[in-house]
Formats: sequence, C-alpha cells, structure tokens
Amino acid sequence: MFNNSSELNSTGLLQCKPVKSLYNLSAYIPGKPIELIEREYGIKGAIKLASNENPYGVSLDVINYLSDKVNSNNNINLYPDGNGYYLKEALADHHKVSTDMITLGNGSNDVLDIITRCFATHGDEVIFSQYAFAVYAICTQAVGAKAVMTPALDWGYDLQAILDAITDKTKIIFIANPNNPTGTCLSGKDLKNFIDQVPANILVVIDEAYVEYASHELSPWHEQYESCVNWLKNYPNLVVTQTFSKAYALAAMRIGYSLSHPQVADFLNRVRQPFNNNQFALDAANIALNDQEHIQSVSKNNWLEMEVLTKALNKLSLNYIPSAGNFISVNFDKVKNGDAQKVDQYLLTKGIIVRPVGNYGMNNYLRISLGTSYENQKLIDALEGYLS
Amino acid sequence: MFNNSSELNSTGLLQCKPVKSLYNLSAYIPGKPIELIEREYGIKGAIKLASNENPYGVSLDVINYLSDKVNSNNNINLYPDGNGYYLKEALADHHKVSTDMITLGNGSNDVLDIITRCFATHGDEVIFSQYAFAVYAICTQAVGAKAVMTPALDWGYDLQAILDAITDKTKIIFIANPNNPTGTCLSGKDLKNFIDQVPANILVVIDEAYVEYASHELSPWHEQYESCVNWLKNYPNLVVTQTFSKAYALAAMRIGYSLSHPQVADFLNRVRQPFNNNQFALDAANIALNDQEHIQSVSKNNWLEMEVLTKALNKLSLNYIPSAGNFISVNFDKVKNGDAQKVDQYLLTKGIIVRPVGNYGMNNYLRISLGTSYENQKLIDALEGYLS
Repeated sequence: MFNNSSELNSTGLLQCKPVKSLYNLSAYIPGKPIELIEREYGIKGAIKLASNENPYGVSLDVINYLSDKVNSNNNINLYPDGNGYYLKEALADHHKVSTDMITLGNGSNDVLDIITRCFATHGDEVIFSQYAFAVYAICTQAVGAKAVMTPALDWGYDLQAILDAITDKTKIIFIANPNNPTGTCLSGKDLKNFIDQVPANILVVIDEAYVEYASHELSPWHEQYESCVNWLKNYPNLVVTQTFSKAYALAAMRIGYSLSHPQVADFLNRVRQPFNNNQFALDAANIALNDQEHIQSVSKNNWLEMEVLTKALNKLSLNYIPSAGNFISVNFDKVKNGDAQKVDQYLLTKGIIVRPVGNYGMNNYLRISLGTSYENQKLIDALEGYLS
Repeated sequence: MFNNSSELNSTGLLQCKPVKSLYNLSAYIPGKPIELIEREYGIKGAIKLASNENPYGVSLDVINYLSDKVNSNNNINLYPDGNGYYLKEALADHHKVSTDMITLGNGSNDVLDIITRCFATHGDEVIFSQYAFAVYAICTQAVGAKAVMTPALDWGYDLQAILDAITDKTKIIFIANPNNPTGTCLSGKDLKNFIDQVPANILVVIDEAYVEYASHELSPWHEQYESCVNWLKNYPNLVVTQTFSKAYALAAMRIGYSLSHPQVADFLNRVRQPFNNNQFALDAANIALNDQEHIQSVSKNNWLEMEVLTKALNKLSLNYIPSAGNFISVNFDKVKNGDAQKVDQYLLTKGIIVRPVGNYGMNNYLRISLGTSYENQKLIDALEGYLS
C-alpha cells in the first residue's frame, strides 16, 4: 500500500502534458458538506445557509415515490433511460415547448459545460459579467476559449457593456437572471431589448436557476421579471437553462436542463454523455415538476422570510444587495470588526454556515441563503451577538 | 404553444455555428429502455439482455440503506459532497491507493470524457482498437482530436499495431480489458510488456469495467488476467478506470472512477463538474463496495451461466467470441436465415432484447448479456425455435 503521492512520485515523474488551457484552471470550490464542517469546528446540528438550497425540502410526492421505488421494482441495476423520455414529455408540457428543444443535464452545470464545449473553442470569446456565477468562467477556460468579463453595474449586469464587448470572435454570452451571488435581476423589457441587439450568430444563454423565486407574486421583481422561455420561438440563438436543484429541492439528485432551438439541442445532445442522468433523479424531477403547489408554497415562504431577514439587517444597519433569489449578499464594511471573514468564522463557531464570496471579488460580503424561519432567527441572533 | 420545430424555424434560422469537430459527431446510441421496446412491439414482461447489466441486482445492503435514507433524513434538497469524501476513502482502502489518485465520475463514461478533455485537443491523436468501446471514439471526436483506430487481432487487441501507430502527436491510448463488445481479454503479462514500451509522455487508459468478472476464480481468464491497479506506482502515465454499473449493479445510479498518478487526478478534477455525482449514488456505491460477498456471488453465477449458454450455443452450432465478461457476441453467418438483424427482430417478438453490434462493424453478430438462469433459458429456447 502506498498512502501518499510522494511514494508514487519517487518511482516516476508525470511526463504527460495536459491541454494548455488547463494549466491555470482552478476547479470550482464547492461549499463544504455540513458534516465536514461539524468535524472541523467540533460543532453539532449546524445550519447550512451556504448553497442556496431549498430549506423546506422536496415535495412529499417525491419521497413517497422514491420510497415505493426503492422497496419494489427499483431497477437500480439497469441503465437509465438515456433520452429521459418521460421527463422531457413533462417538461415540454410544463413549458409549452417541443421535446426536441430540451437537453437534460446532470444539474444545469452539466448543460452549461456542454453548451460551452459545443459552441466555443481555442480562439473564440465568451462574454459574462463581473460577479456572475463562477461556472461560466470555468467552462470557458476548460475549452480554451477567451473569457471576456464586463464590469458590473450596481452589482448587476451592464447590458450595454456586454454589447460593446462583442467582437467577431464572440460565440457565447452568459447571463444569469436573477444573478448569483448578487441576486440582482434584469427586467424582461431590458433583457429582450438586449437580445434584440445581439448578432444572431452569437448564442445568448440565460441561466434561470432562480426563476421560481423571481417570478412568484410576492417577489418584489414579480411585475418586471420575465422568464425568457416564451421568447425562444423568436430567437434561434437563445438558450434558457433551468434546474431542479433550487426551488424544486433536488440538489442531491442532479437534474438541470436547457431549452433551445432544436438544432442547438441536437448539437448539445451529441456532446452530452448518453447516460448523464441518474434514473432515480429523472423520476424524482418528473414527480417534483408535477407538484406546482409545493413550488408556490416554497416561494411564498421564501419571500416572507426575506422580509423578516431584510428588516433585521436594516435594524442592524447592515447593507445588502436586494435579491430576487433565495439568498442575499450582506456587506460588512460599515460595522465594527467589519471583516466578512471574521463574521464568517464567528458564525461557524455558532454552527451557522454561510458562503464567503471573496472568490467573486466581493471581499467584504457574505452570501446568506434563506433558511427556515427557525434557521433565519438563529442567524439574526448570531449577527446581533457579533455586532453588540 | 409551438409543438414542432418547423414553427420555430419559420421565425428564424439558426446562425450559431458549433465547433467544427462536432459537425460529424454522432451521439452514442444507447440501448432502448425495456418499456419503450415493449410499447413498440406490443409485448409484456420483456427480458433485457442488451446492456451488460447485472441481472441479480444490487447488494441488499444498498436497498436497505436507500430505504432508510429516503424515509428519514434524506437531505435530497442539499448539494452532494462534491469531493465524494467517504466513497474515496472506501475506494482508497479497497484498492490500497491514496485518495488523491481517485477521480469520481458520473459513470466511467464521465471519467473517460474528462480524461480526453484534459489530455487531447485539436491536432493531437488518440489511439484505440477496432471493435473497442464506442465511447472512446466519441470522446476523441468531441475534443477535436484525431482518432487513430488500429486493426483488431482475433477480435481483440493487436498491441504491436498500437505501438506501431504511436506518433509524436499521440496523447492517449484507450484499452478496455476485458474488451466490450467482443469480450476478449489481454493477459497481465502482455499488457505490462505493452505499457513498458509506450513512451512515458503518452497516457495509457485501461478501462476495467468488467474486472470483477474476468478476475473471478471461475473465469477461464483468471490465471492470466491481472488488474492494472497494482502497477500504478510504477507507471505515472497509467490510468485505470472502473465502474459501479456492471458487477456492482448500480447502472441507474451512475458512479465510475479512475485511479491515476495524483497529478493526473488533479487535472481531471479541475475539469470534472464540481457536483457530478448524485449523493444517493455516492452512498449506494460506498455500501455496495463493502459487500464483496455479493460481488463474488454475482461473478460466480455469471460463470456458471456462461457455461450453460456456451454449451447451448455449441449444440446449436453457433459461433461466438469467448468472453471474459458478462456478455457474449454470437455470430450468425453459418446458420440458415443467418442474418443477425433477422434474429434480433425474431427475439424481440419473443420479448427478448439483445444488442445488435453493426455500429461496431460486427454486422452478423449480436451481443447477448448474460441474464439469470431463467432468462438465459428463455433466450436459448428462442434461438432453438428460430433455428429449427
């Protein structure tokens, strides 16, 4: 048994060289699992408000289905349906699109990766904004294309800056709406006006991971926000991605998808791994999609909790970026010991895990996912404790 | 609602061009799910002997675990552990390697894809053999590298032909041992002798998807076969892939992995999507790995059934390629109506699904996965019926 790499290295140096563009590629840094943090900090019953997960959990229909499936004809030994026939039918019905516009991914990360592999390579350019979701940059670098990052405007998208950044090498523009980690939101009107101005040979990818929250009637963005799904028929270069990892509460399961022109979907499906979706996940997503009442309830609770939390932040004189999602980025500039890193460490000792966003260049911010009422109160109490 | 692509196309033609290498890329054609075939042929209770799945199912420990997990603290709303901490610990212990040598994939297909993305690009060459697993060609084309296919020798690998095909552009050599779909097997001695001759700057990937079958004491290859895992310390350019989809019976779950030099694993993990593994799958694989008695029993049954099936094929004067896996490729040249396609269609009407391998250039062959004793007898009866 050789238990560390030194023994391995002693017998030979790696002479295989990876593709050049990977030399400087850093992997995405995921939030640590609760149990790992509990081990590290010697705490128990920690609360995780770090990964924008749905704290209310999945539709009970999913639990009942999985329970039945595991205990009866689970077919766990059989390959999944590589075409995701039933889930695609359900999504087509839900979104009023044809099934040949759908590409299923192992989470929407998978779809974003596939899109980049299909439409950008060495010598091409991919545009995204400052403070945009980190995965866009990783996907771009992984295919060896040039990342063009436009400056943000009030923590959100400067659409004119993006238009100005377009060159004849531009292949893809990534926009998250709402954006993560800032929570900013573009109006349907502005976004449509933007897409109108993008040359038709450039793919515009709108990542709608938080669409269920932004579009809920209690959302402050409700009136102005619009999902781009209905515009697909007018823009062959438009791709919309959505996920079951957020409001649908299936993050552990890994299902996301894109809706696009069928020809785009055809290319995506060539690069897609034939069995990229776990069969239990496909089934769970199908059941979850069918329980829209649960999604409504989850979103409603999110906005009620957002009101409680923002009021508390106001009371504590903490600045934050108003968010259209199920999370909020809070600034610690103006408070004593106003160092996000120190606050983060303090919260960890209190058993509360939030997300530092220094890797986004938001050094004095912490991104806090909304939890249940109980969890949010624990957070508020801890912040009060730190600041008093 | 627009229900077909023509309405979409009427509003605009796609002007986005995908990366050139994808123009001629055809997606992997997976076997159809049982229920789809049952619908197509109007049959019920079909037997699937098409995807080399384990007909005995998963360890009962996995079922018990999943049943408990679904009904208790399932955490289905939380992201999986992106680093697969516990499964890596278990695999490191099982294989006597260090955890930094492990890369977890969403099935071994994922790992094969990641390896190709990391080490080959436009202008590079990737070598694999005629009749080798179709995914090697797809991965190679997807990154725009040149596929160099060497001719087979007796349906298996001509290792000298591979050595002769090496140029200064060669980056990766893929070898499946045992090979799918032919079932041929290289001896440990021959394979080691081959790796010794491959320049150290070329990655040699040995795909051991069927290792549990080939290495079982009832396997006719048992004496000469050797897993390459123990050689990793001597060859920094060696990568071994294994999977939970075959003997471990977790195909629906999607877990595969590679073992390699830690520096190779470091690069693979940069390109790997951070949450490429479903949490239920990670847990199930961990439990399944722990029940080696089940794997022994599965492999033993496989070889007992292989004996029954080959005896029956001999009696029917059907030629086949002796296989070191849980499947066998049968030739239909010498029999009346000796057309594999016709036999396939006949078997389908009898509710038996096998795999045509015309896409591998094995036009008059059908690949038959070994089923349970009952399933294999149904197959034998159907073949007798067709040939009589």
